[in-house]
Amino acid sequence: MTLLVMKFGGTSVADLERIRHAAAHVKREVAAGNRPAVVVSAMAGETNRLVALTREASPLHDAREYDTVVSSGEQVTTGLMAIVLQSMGIQARSWQGWQIPIVTDDAHGAARIKEVPGNELLRRMERGEVPVVAGFQGLGPDNRVTTLGRGGSDTSAVALAAGLGAERCDIYTDVDGVYTTDPRIVARARRLERISYEEMLEMASLGAKVLQTRSVELAMVKGVRLQVRSSFDDPESVPPAGSDAPAPGTLVCDEDEIVEKQIVSGITYAKDEARITLVEVADKPGVAAAVFGPLAEAGINVDMIVQSVSDDGRHTDITFTVAAADLDKTMSALEELRAQIGFKELRGTTDVVKVSVIGIGMRSHAGVAASMFKALAEKSINIQAISTSEIKISVLIDAAYTELAVRTLHSLYGLDDL
Amino acid sequence: MTLLVMKFGGTSVADLERIRHAAAHVKREVAAGNRPAVVVSAMAGETNRLVALTREASPLHDAREYDTVVSSGEQVTTGLMAIVLQSMGIQARSWQGWQIPIVTDDAHGAARIKEVPGNELLRRMERGEVPVVAGFQGLGPDNRVTTLGRGGSDTSAVALAAGLGAERCDIYTDVDGVYTTDPRIVARARRLERISYEEMLEMASLGAKVLQTRSVELAMVKGVRLQVRSSFDDPESVPPAGSDAPAPGTLVCDEDEIVEKQIVSGITYAKDEARITLVEVADKPGVAAAVFGPLAEAGINVDMIVQSVSDDGRHTDITFTVAAADLDKTMSALEELRAQIGFKELRGTTDVVKVSVIGIGMRSHAGVAASMFKALAEKSINIQAISTSEIKISVLIDAAYTELAVRTLHSLYGLDDL
Repeated sequence: MTLLVMKFGGTSVADLERIRHAAAHVKREVAAGNRPAVVVSAMAGETNRLVALTREASPLHDAREYDTVVSSGEQVTTGLMAIVLQSMGIQARSWQGWQIPIVTDDAHGAARIKEVPGNELLRRMERGEVPVVAGFQGLGPDNRVTTLGRGGSDTSAVALAAGLGAERCDIYTDVDGVYTTDPRIVARARRLERISYEEMLEMASLGAKVLQTRSVELAMVKGVRLQVRSSFDDPESVPPAGSDAPAPGTLVCDEDEIVEKQIVSGITYAKDEARITLVEVADKPGVAAAVFGPLAEAGINVDMIVQSVSDDGRHTDITFTVAAADLDKTMSALEELRAQIGFKELRGTTDVVKVSVIGIGMRSHAGVAASMFKALAEKSINIQAISTSEIKISVLIDAAYTELAVRTLHSLYGLDDL
Repeated sequence: MTLLVMKFGGTSVADLERIRHAAAHVKREVAAGNRPAVVVSAMAGETNRLVALTREASPLHDAREYDTVVSSGEQVTTGLMAIVLQSMGIQARSWQGWQIPIVTDDAHGAARIKEVPGNELLRRMERGEVPVVAGFQGLGPDNRVTTLGRGGSDTSAVALAAGLGAERCDIYTDVDGVYTTDPRIVARARRLERISYEEMLEMASLGAKVLQTRSVELAMVKGVRLQVRSSFDDPESVPPAGSDAPAPGTLVCDEDEIVEKQIVSGITYAKDEARITLVEVADKPGVAAAVFGPLAEAGINVDMIVQSVSDDGRHTDITFTVAAADLDKTMSALEELRAQIGFKELRGTTDVVKVSVIGIGMRSHAGVAASMFKALAEKSINIQAISTSEIKISVLIDAAYTELAVRTLHSLYGLDDL
């Protein structure tokens, strides 16, 4: 008997045919004697439709009322999934955030889950009932529905798994696991059987879209094991939880569970970056603060920063990156500060990409950065900026070289599926 | 300062343009210093869409889950209405049935409201807040959302008005009041300025679709004054509640508030009737029980009943009416009982109409029935069955004579708008 959470995203519950398919996955687990709780997203497209209605009502709308409108999407799916499960002979019952309750803070539209009490649900699960829980929503301290922000259903599933003490949280999605890199640009990309929380966290924040960053953070903190898997699998032909055969997909878990640690587990790329260069800034103390202080105040996150001294020794060039969506805002903020900062020229472009190499094995292996820079240089790819952490190295390069860089590094670190 | 409930039905909130128009009605009342609470239905078409989804999920579905899915329609409207009101500078806040809570029994899909506590809402209304309450829904004893059955939003509005002690409950709809009869078939039909609860109750149950029967019953029991009015009126040009000018539409109120009582206030017709005749049943004690007992057990409501003795004195014909939707079910139930009851022939038709004359003045005026029968006879309209109450007379006639009968009676009782 395995206690598990099964989460189905928007494309996995897009219509009643898909809901029936998802329900068949649940039935397999029930038939095997497991105890699943189900978490569902809104049917694909519904959240966008509801968000558009709130915008049409008023561009500047109250976040509480946005939550009232948008949370109805998951509500509908819970009821439909419960009906479909019942029609398959499974005792099922829908649960909204306010009924459990999934307790959140009061940040309407982007709330954080504080607690998911599992007692009532566990009592019902022991009697054979399958709870179908609305993802993406909770109950705020004002007795009003809150939503967690886009992609929040993964986080709901992890929080529920923690609240129930589930052995695993299965995230059913439209891909069949976590890959060493994007299979669309590297045909030899391999599915990973296991990946550590730390690596997954870097991958999620560096461009891999398979899991929402917050859900991975929470899984790491609560020790919830995540199985990323495809809802398109034939429900009958995959093994239920607790059987000897491994589950399909990728297990995101503590690194202690990973026996053979790769030096590099994955290569990501993020195209939604913009590079800004301030040319010939006076090279004097306080200039960095003059540039980055006002940007921080404007709520603009700066990622990589490079400062290079010019030939005359009196001037410096400052290059940094921001999210592409913040480029215009950043450029106009800096233009206003031109006199104050004193620079010769301001350049901005979104024609860049951040390519990252990720692996917990880097901690104990030196030379990963050196081999990376050498391999890129051999392909004449110029590195514009660098940032590193204990388990990743990111470089900013010309966007035109994205595929070449990712393929080169994928081969370099032995990730190709041979 | 008038405390009032303003209820907007599905066509009055069909899209954001209509919601803005409805909100302008609310704004007029706020601007006049009144304290409105708003009740909204689902946007026109939404409930049908959601009901279809539950049917697609499974034709035989759990009523609790049906309620979970279908109640989302009103939820969306409350949020959108609150956003639109806020954009007009009005403090507004949405309320779902579970938040107030609108306490109902546990009859999921057709629940009855037991209580609407008004304290919290009244406190907020005193501070200038406008509550926007989801109609058609409540909270059952199992902590689950219930729905009241189709048309239940009128009942929600009346129950809320009672809970708040509101002076009036305005039902905004797509017609501009209650008419002496259907204006589509009698061009001279007149809008009534006032009508008593008892008359409205008969009209609602006898075919006038403007208000749901249960809402009128509840209004009568709780003494809630209802103003039926058009949401299509120009919000600026109609007087706010509490002003000297009378509100547009029709006031449904206690008969004590009606100074000049008409003998007849309205003529209705109902086409969704079916007539069944059992020909040559043995005229012996217990035969009526043998026919109607099994129908009652099958949940079939029988309305009018006529028993006529045949020429030989040993047989009788039994004619009665049921809802047209129950005709097939009734016919097959009787076929199965053919041997037991012993009849010669079974005839059924939906080619009939029930025409009714309604008026509280009938209580003190004899001769209304006689003049009605005489007028119909003069037009060669054959009466197939009759039923009466203290304030109404209904006759069953051939459907082909519907318009002629209604027009004839409308003139006969002086209801024509001259």
